[in-house]
Amino acid sequence: MSTWQEIAADKRARQTESIPKDWLIAKPPDDVLDVTTVPEDSGLLSDLELEITSVVDVSVLLNNLATGKWSSVAVVTAFAKRAIIAHQVTNCLTEIFIDKALERAAWLDEQLKTTGKVVGPLHGLPVSLKDQISLQGLETIMGYVSWVGRIAEKNAVLADILIDCGAVPYVRTNVPQTLMWPETYNLVFGRTVNPRNRTLTSGGSSGGEGALIAMHGSVLGVGSDIGGSIRIPAAMNGIYGLRPTCNRVPYSGAANSLEGQDSIRSVLGPLSSSLNGVKTFMKAVLSKKPWLLDPLVVRKPWSEEEYSLVDHGGGKKLCFAILWDNGIVKPHPPVKRALEMTKAALLKAGHEVVDWKSYKYAEIIECTRDIWTAAGLEDYQAVTSQLGEPILESMLGAEAEATAEYVGQESISAFRLFQIQKKLLALRKESLDLWQATQSQTSTGRPVDAIISPVAAHAPTPHGKYTYFRSAAYTLVFNALDYPACVFPVTAVDPQLDMPSPAHAFLSEDDKLMYELYDDPSTFKNAPVALQLVGRGLEEEAVVAMTEIVDAALKV
Amino acid sequence: MSTWQEIAADKRARQTESIPKDWLIAKPPDDVLDVTTVPEDSGLLSDLELEITSVVDVSVLLNNLATGKWSSVAVVTAFAKRAIIAHQVTNCLTEIFIDKALERAAWLDEQLKTTGKVVGPLHGLPVSLKDQISLQGLETIMGYVSWVGRIAEKNAVLADILIDCGAVPYVRTNVPQTLMWPETYNLVFGRTVNPRNRTLTSGGSSGGEGALIAMHGSVLGVGSDIGGSIRIPAAMNGIYGLRPTCNRVPYSGAANSLEGQDSIRSVLGPLSSSLNGVKTFMKAVLSKKPWLLDPLVVRKPWSEEEYSLVDHGGGKKLCFAILWDNGIVKPHPPVKRALEMTKAALLKAGHEVVDWKSYKYAEIIECTRDIWTAAGLEDYQAVTSQLGEPILESMLGAEAEATAEYVGQESISAFRLFQIQKKLLALRKESLDLWQATQSQTSTGRPVDAIISPVAAHAPTPHGKYTYFRSAAYTLVFNALDYPACVFPVTAVDPQLDMPSPAHAFLSEDDKLMYELYDDPSTFKNAPVALQLVGRGLEEEAVVAMTEIVDAALKV
Repeated sequence: MSTWQEIAADKRARQTESIPKDWLIAKPPDDVLDVTTVPEDSGLLSDLELEITSVVDVSVLLNNLATGKWSSVAVVTAFAKRAIIAHQVTNCLTEIFIDKALERAAWLDEQLKTTGKVVGPLHGLPVSLKDQISLQGLETIMGYVSWVGRIAEKNAVLADILIDCGAVPYVRTNVPQTLMWPETYNLVFGRTVNPRNRTLTSGGSSGGEGALIAMHGSVLGVGSDIGGSIRIPAAMNGIYGLRPTCNRVPYSGAANSLEGQDSIRSVLGPLSSSLNGVKTFMKAVLSKKPWLLDPLVVRKPWSEEEYSLVDHGGGKKLCFAILWDNGIVKPHPPVKRALEMTKAALLKAGHEVVDWKSYKYAEIIECTRDIWTAAGLEDYQAVTSQLGEPILESMLGAEAEATAEYVGQESISAFRLFQIQKKLLALRKESLDLWQATQSQTSTGRPVDAIISPVAAHAPTPHGKYTYFRSAAYTLVFNALDYPACVFPVTAVDPQLDMPSPAHAFLSEDDKLMYELYDDPSTFKNAPVALQLVGRGLEEEAVVAMTEIVDAALKV
Repeated sequence: MSTWQEIAADKRARQTESIPKDWLIAKPPDDVLDVTTVPEDSGLLSDLELEITSVVDVSVLLNNLATGKWSSVAVVTAFAKRAIIAHQVTNCLTEIFIDKALERAAWLDEQLKTTGKVVGPLHGLPVSLKDQISLQGLETIMGYVSWVGRIAEKNAVLADILIDCGAVPYVRTNVPQTLMWPETYNLVFGRTVNPRNRTLTSGGSSGGEGALIAMHGSVLGVGSDIGGSIRIPAAMNGIYGLRPTCNRVPYSGAANSLEGQDSIRSVLGPLSSSLNGVKTFMKAVLSKKPWLLDPLVVRKPWSEEEYSLVDHGGGKKLCFAILWDNGIVKPHPPVKRALEMTKAALLKAGHEVVDWKSYKYAEIIECTRDIWTAAGLEDYQAVTSQLGEPILESMLGAEAEATAEYVGQESISAFRLFQIQKKLLALRKESLDLWQATQSQTSTGRPVDAIISPVAAHAPTPHGKYTYFRSAAYTLVFNALDYPACVFPVTAVDPQLDMPSPAHAFLSEDDKLMYELYDDPSTFKNAPVALQLVGRGLEEEAVVAMTEIVDAALKV
């Protein structure tokens, strides 16, 4: 029987074989940190392929595909090539199946030619998938050596729906072992790095998607988010990402950690180089009535009425509330600047801006940790014990010091779990009531329309420094409250502008550590800085529409 | 310090005091089994009060209230009087607060007079509430002696919404200790009996509501359902009741058992003497945007489009599937006859009828039991240990033999719980896929539109004979699958027509016990027999509309 190390090495070898040989490039040396121009510089992409992959707006691609200006084969080839280049410099991919994708693209082209009609709203579009979204006949490894060789018998429901919409899956993307980390590193495929600065993290757990899309190796990908795993890599890579409310997008048939944990669930959702990609994904998925295919999905079609902000005064004058500080860790100077830029842009656009007060976030985060760790160790061990691969205790890699905070110990009792879940529900009710009560603070006659919040206190960190309960506190609190949230890029770290601020009275040891992380701004040079717009439960339509408004205001 | 017996006795004495003295009647002797005519015979109700309380259609009452034909004071007085009479013969009430109700009714009358407008869609209507729906300033006892004296600081969200709609709460209704029983008996208020035959159960856990509404002491009440607790008393009392999908009707602020258990949740919903009452309740509650008040409620207004059966071919030709037998216990002859009557009526009305096959119901029920008992005992003990009141182990009363099946033992681990929940989710997915696949069995081009199923294998049983995992298997399977289901009355047991069938090859010991329960049909004479119509998740509108179609077909 092979060791886990041998099995992992064999899988990596098979992955290398799955790359078309003539798509291999001369890799830049390791000390080239920004690799975003490698695709253009590689000489591998034709002018048309460069033109196609320079498009960020999904609707432009879909339009050119629907009119036949660009064939699906051409578009898939272009993005596949660029994805392979991206992989060689960021290590963002897991399964690579270009042949299969091109076969499907050719079929779609044929359909369009024969019938004159598109197969569906995503006709011909290459779509990348996080390494959880099972595809029949392919392994679903999800960062576990123990799952190497585990061939999926059928597609995840969401994969079926995307295919039904005319999309073309062509690659799957890297994740951390267990998925429960905000960086991307595992013992099968190793680490995915940030394309703008390879010494920094691409975020996680959908870090492969984040790096791939930032490299223009994909325009639209699917990630998952239980504590920020869509929003973190979106933010760390300067792209867009939506964490939908639970049970809006079908999860059935996708692999996952902590299955059967029903109270703070992971959700699937889009990452994209444009906000239009986010909207297009949601409309397409919901057009296929996913509630008939996944018993958890809410029977609620995409509502154009809600997208027109019928519950938010038609969007004419909105009131946004800014979360300047979550009371746990103070944002670094570039994040603070992003909030200030956004405030100024919104005021200039005629909207109202007030302050959002964090409410018992520390308690909410404590409940979250207690629920995730309630049986976490036993869950991970049930997988890893098959081969004896170690359970990672940090994202630093082999040299890691053990920090088992997130792994949990022995499983707690169901009764204890219920008490935590009961407490969390009470906190959710109090939080919702406080949101309703903000009506008295606005001039719109409505409660605050949306919260604008940091995604993290920091820009992408050096590897191993993005902690779950310190860094990700800004994201996971909205998982616990089950609010939809959309990430939008705002700026990049500028060491000149973003000088370290003088030490403040630290709220906690975590706050002190966070402050010290920014001792040298040049560490973060050019790193993207993004924010998230947060709405209330199941108002994805309004969240997308309001993010469009904020995004447009920032671009004026 | 008082014993639990003293505390319970004191509460009962206080309850007696809360009854207006001139509304006490000469109680019929215990051997008068059918007490449904007692209100008419008591001489306590005026002609107008008899006229008002003879109305079963909620829309007629609401119309007469809105036009001022009947004042709210008159309507509330009539139903309150009749409720008090019902209580004296069935023991259906817990909290009685007529003075408060009449005060509110007078205010509503004044509002209508002054403004010419109704306060809301339930203007002036008395509404009864199960003894979980907290009302500020009143005790919420929920069948626990330990909760006597526990005054609610605020209204349950649903109570607030009903009040906001113009409803008038006036009584609360009896429940079993722990709520986790399909009969109604506790150590504070004792047993609620079936008004048509007091030796039979009123069902549970919303048994007080069932008996009260059957006595015309209320036209519309609120119950809760985690395994049948709305549908069972509705069926046992020959009235209507809807078990909505989880998270459609707000639960927040209501007392409950097993709080924090997030996977098979209890839901609140209506019981009514008419189907119109069920619809009116749902429309009224959803008109108040409960998702802004309860973080779990789905953002989904009442849809007139779905009520017009847009997803079911406009309702012109529907295909119903009949569950003749759940493969666990065979229905008694009167239940079988009710299914046959319904089939004939539907065919006559031009609809299609096919057979529904049960799918892994035994496994679904096993998961359900394992989840409910995962921490049940610890949950109940956390309450009862305050005073040392015994946890009931059957619904037989003091003379009960212990049958601890439903109580559970020590709490299982969170990991074990997650494995059960994972299994249940897989069963839900398989069940949904099978429903979709029924498209091949229908002539409508659609999958089966609704299932028609027994509520139990039997009519109301003698006290203590309605078991959870044998009798209630027909209801709780749809809680586990989270399908909405509406109960409608069909017929009554007729010992002439419903002769015991010859013994069949028993599927199990449970099936044998169920068969033996029907050895003497006269036990069940005149007992109501009802069925339930079951739809898919979150299609309450279609379930109500289709139940109207079935109900009308039966009445031709």
